Amino acid sequence: MRNKLIYKYIGKVLIGYSFLLILPFLVGLYYNELPLVFLYTALETLALGFLLTRLKSDRKNLFARDGFKIVTISWVVISLIGAIPLMVDANLSFVDAFFEAVSGFTTTGATMFDNVEILPKSILFWRDFMHFIGGMGVLAFVMAIVPLAKSDKSMYLLKAEMPGPSVSKLVPSIKKTLYYLYGIYFALTLIEFILLLISGMPVFDSLLISMGTAGTGGFSPLSTSVATYSVMAKIVVSVFMFLFGVNFNIYFLILIKDFKSAFKSEELKVYIGLYLFTVFLLVMNSINIFSSINEALLNGFFNASSFISSTGYSIGDVNIYPTACRLWILFMMVVSACAGSTCGGFKVSRLILIFKIIKRDIQKIVHPNSVSMITFEGKKVEEETLESTKSFMFLYILLILIILFVVSLDGFSLETSINAVFSTFGNVGLYFDIPSFSMFSDLSKIFMSIGMLLGRLEIYPIIALLVSRRK
Amino acid sequence: MRNKLIYKYIGKVLIGYSFLLILPFLVGLYYNELPLVFLYTALETLALGFLLTRLKSDRKNLFARDGFKIVTISWVVISLIGAIPLMVDANLSFVDAFFEAVSGFTTTGATMFDNVEILPKSILFWRDFMHFIGGMGVLAFVMAIVPLAKSDKSMYLLKAEMPGPSVSKLVPSIKKTLYYLYGIYFALTLIEFILLLISGMPVFDSLLISMGTAGTGGFSPLSTSVATYSVMAKIVVSVFMFLFGVNFNIYFLILIKDFKSAFKSEELKVYIGLYLFTVFLLVMNSINIFSSINEALLNGFFNASSFISSTGYSIGDVNIYPTACRLWILFMMVVSACAGSTCGGFKVSRLILIFKIIKRDIQKIVHPNSVSMITFEGKKVEEETLESTKSFMFLYILLILIILFVVSLDGFSLETSINAVFSTFGNVGLYFDIPSFSMFSDLSKIFMSIGMLLGRLEIYPIIALLVSRRK
Repeated sequence: MRNKLIYKYIGKVLIGYSFLLILPFLVGLYYNELPLVFLYTALETLALGFLLTRLKSDRKNLFARDGFKIVTISWVVISLIGAIPLMVDANLSFVDAFFEAVSGFTTTGATMFDNVEILPKSILFWRDFMHFIGGMGVLAFVMAIVPLAKSDKSMYLLKAEMPGPSVSKLVPSIKKTLYYLYGIYFALTLIEFILLLISGMPVFDSLLISMGTAGTGGFSPLSTSVATYSVMAKIVVSVFMFLFGVNFNIYFLILIKDFKSAFKSEELKVYIGLYLFTVFLLVMNSINIFSSINEALLNGFFNASSFISSTGYSIGDVNIYPTACRLWILFMMVVSACAGSTCGGFKVSRLILIFKIIKRDIQKIVHPNSVSMITFEGKKVEEETLESTKSFMFLYILLILIILFVVSLDGFSLETSINAVFSTFGNVGLYFDIPSFSMFSDLSKIFMSIGMLLGRLEIYPIIALLVSRRK
Repeated sequence: MRNKLIYKYIGKVLIGYSFLLILPFLVGLYYNELPLVFLYTALETLALGFLLTRLKSDRKNLFARDGFKIVTISWVVISLIGAIPLMVDANLSFVDAFFEAVSGFTTTGATMFDNVEILPKSILFWRDFMHFIGGMGVLAFVMAIVPLAKSDKSMYLLKAEMPGPSVSKLVPSIKKTLYYLYGIYFALTLIEFILLLISGMPVFDSLLISMGTAGTGGFSPLSTSVATYSVMAKIVVSVFMFLFGVNFNIYFLILIKDFKSAFKSEELKVYIGLYLFTVFLLVMNSINIFSSINEALLNGFFNASSFISSTGYSIGDVNIYPTACRLWILFMMVVSACAGSTCGGFKVSRLILIFKIIKRDIQKIVHPNSVSMITFEGKKVEEETLESTKSFMFLYILLILIILFVVSLDGFSLETSINAVFSTFGNVGLYFDIPSFSMFSDLSKIFMSIGMLLGRLEIYPIIALLVSRRK
């Protein structure tokens, strides 16, 4: 029975996950709340996890497709469990709670709440903690707690969870690689937390916002996002949103003092270029709207960071920008930042490859017999990788169109539908023109939830699961 | 001098073209107008053509890239010349006249005129005659008049003008193939003309509408398009718009009584399927809006024909349809109908190939070592063809995005910008939400004109010209 092995692994994931559910319970206790739902959910999850790990299976080897299945099923189950406290303590319907939980774990940050100030602290903490868990991948997070697989076989899980062109072992051992990545992740979060405290932000808010930034999520303890915090806080958030959009390998290279390799990165250069162009576009197009140039600059830098890193925090109305800006932002929302970061989206590295492919195709039109290879980050890219990048783009566009069609059935304007679908599929959460995501129908919410998962897991795990089941 | 040979050919095209310019002059005379501008333009074009054909060149062989250049330059020059009467006799600015002429030859049908009833008959004739000339390709039309190249080398020109997967020689000789295709084209137009006369439409209008339908253009002698004609006329136009979206090879097969091959065509089946689905979607979503089911059905059939065949005639307000319908229509506008028809767009055959590619890609995710070939119309498709179809799609999307960005600078809503760009790039001409194309800036009009040419000539000729010039 092959599936038993899969459920055994999922059981392990759930055991690790149950410990994470204790944290919002403790936070609630600290703030004089009694969020027993978290304790209850944690215990049930632990029990379920144990049951699943008792399954006996004949085989021991994990294959690539098993990794896909484990990851997809885990993400759905974890979101379903994570939705329970939101239903009980925040009065969300099942679909709304599922949307909110998926939005949390996929680090989207699109919310069902119109007024978050009335929510208990435990729920507010849980929302941003989901971002923090989801940022580097739920399984990767859990693997840092419980050993899922002792050998390097667990690489399959990591690869299935972050299938971008990025997950390379920084050091020979997968375990050590994970520790390095998480070390960087925690360290950056901690630095942001301290800087936010210095900026005058309350401790609880600083904790939430730094976790929300780290995962490039976007849930805030305030309905006004980060608009009411100090200017310094805004600058700190803006800088860290940008930083969490960088490939973590770059930080590793900086840590081992290999600055040359770090700053030679093509992806980093293009990411910075796209970022600066976006800032330029936003500032130029809003300079007459704001009362001062400084205000336009602050908004430009902040919004560019927020949209491109797929975080979705805001410091004011983003609807002020004209159509061309919005179009560019929509494009950047689905492209997003670097592979190997905590961002969603198509990733800058894939965009670079696609442009190199187009360039070569054009050359072929003029010189049909020309043969040229494509290089990226100084290395030749295999034709197979180019093929899979193209396939990925096709699927990406096709799936966005399908979800867009379903959402458009709700009858909102085409622009609103596009904004909502791009914002969720790109795991951004911030959007133009939409008063609230709660206005959409349940069908749209479910499809947008699927879209968030597809965007976050980069399509393949879910497709693999769906296709193989049909056999 | 390689370019001399190219200009020599362009000279021949211009000579053929000059004869065509006489026709609107004669039509004007018949209706007691004195449109001397057509005579003048015809003579100047003839003179220019003769001058160019006198160029001496060392070589005699045409290469594929020469074909691309001849086609692109010819289309631009012919549009520039065709714009002259529109400037002189219809008071359009240079940019507007160029847009209108490009819209005519590319069979788009997007117009700069808000009130066409005040225009002279010669101009009205010219607008739809441009559709008729452009429908099968300007060069193909001219080749039917003057022999451009005596041997089968002129296949390069045809291939460059209609580079879809469709231009195959029906019979061994290229000349005969052309005659067959034009025979079908003229015959269908004539049948429609007669049926429109029977329906009670005035002679002049019948002539114009049948030419406009044949080219899948969409210019009408009335500002109300075909809304004020009889029901029979509407049905005739609706049927013929659909028919001109069919690959002409199918008609050839029917002519030689090979019905089996004709109705086995995959592209035809998918085209009919997409058409019927569109009708279903339109009717279902408008059944409560119209006073009777018959009205909803008539509008559904007519609008589906008009949008999918990229014609763009209308019999009423198309803005009644809800968002999901519009999204589907936008999609069908850029996909359009069959290759080898007079339609613009991405073509159904390419859409089928893309879906087959996606299906194979998904299979590869689940079974990484599986090898399967793709068949289309009963034949194996070469990997090279699949590659070029993918490249075509990339370029298609990229170019649409670039033009969309430029048009969005005008500051109209994103939806309006998308509607305008899809309508022009897909050579449709009908659109949602836009009172008139004349409201756009000159920059947008120029970029949409380029878009119409890119869409019509299927990108490669223009790209080839631009890229090779840079060397």
